[in-house]
Amino acid sequence: MPAEPRSRRVLGIDPGLSDTGYGLIGPGDGALAVLATGVISTLRDLRLEDRIQLIYTGVDELLAALSPELVVLEDLYAEYRFPRTALLMAHARGVICLAARQRHVDILALAPGEVKRAVTGNGRASKEQVQHSVQRLLALGGLPRPSHVADALALAFTGYSRMGGRLT
Amino acid sequence: MPAEPRSRRVLGIDPGLSDTGYGLIGPGDGALAVLATGVISTLRDLRLEDRIQLIYTGVDELLAALSPELVVLEDLYAEYRFPRTALLMAHARGVICLAARQRHVDILALAPGEVKRAVTGNGRASKEQVQHSVQRLLALGGLPRPSHVADALALAFTGYSRMGGRLT
Repeated sequence: MPAEPRSRRVLGIDPGLSDTGYGLIGPGDGALAVLATGVISTLRDLRLEDRIQLIYTGVDELLAALSPELVVLEDLYAEYRFPRTALLMAHARGVICLAARQRHVDILALAPGEVKRAVTGNGRASKEQVQHSVQRLLALGGLPRPSHVADALALAFTGYSRMGGRLT
Repeated sequence: MPAEPRSRRVLGIDPGLSDTGYGLIGPGDGALAVLATGVISTLRDLRLEDRIQLIYTGVDELLAALSPELVVLEDLYAEYRFPRTALLMAHARGVICLAARQRHVDILALAPGEVKRAVTGNGRASKEQVQHSVQRLLALGGLPRPSHVADALALAFTGYSRMGGRLT
């Protein structure tokens, strides 16, 4: 999968210290296609700095291998249900931003409501509705799993449409 | 200031997206001394990824120049008064952990109460009491300022005493 100067590929990333989901979309054979998905996982019994390093290295390698034009993340919002988990997520998000910056890939941060609206038409859609819409929009054979990957694909799709990419 | 194999130098860091304070302590002329202090500041009108990159580069350069044996950070706690500020702080903390990990410098995370107790004898001491104790313990000519530097020195002092370093 050689990199093109303007790849029109968009990489959505859903950061988490335990599981960071990603999904790459871009022009396939005439239609928008899912080009890569996966999860970067780190074990709980590793030290924080080792987990952070694994996420940084994993994302850096993804950026090198996939050559996205844009990385799309969820914007920060004020109220997280689990503050400690959110703080650890933010450590991961920090090194992901750093990796993108160092690879000169632009970052777009989108509000959760905007992504839900773009994908389902409803800014308050459930996780399941988002998964089903992503499956339909990207013509996937099954529901995107795990949910981190579904969220990453929803981010990528919304970012791609914001770039003015052809969606069908 | 050439690096020694076992430098006994401890670098306290108080991360923040706007201001990251640091303070290096270690054996001076017979007594524990402050060897370096400073603040890495980033402007509000820069993009998050640019600010993160400046903090990462700044800390990486500090680690290269100062050769600390240990980096001491404040542990995460569940309740921050300003959740969004805490999430941005955690982005900075993430890239600081990454920089230390990449330079093979150990990281020690200390609870705020433990630092206050080590420095003032009281786990619920005020910021002012911490500043005055740090001034006295490290024989500073004036109060350590700004408060990010005072907090970083308090962290370094507590980490140093935990390592079994001679404090006087």
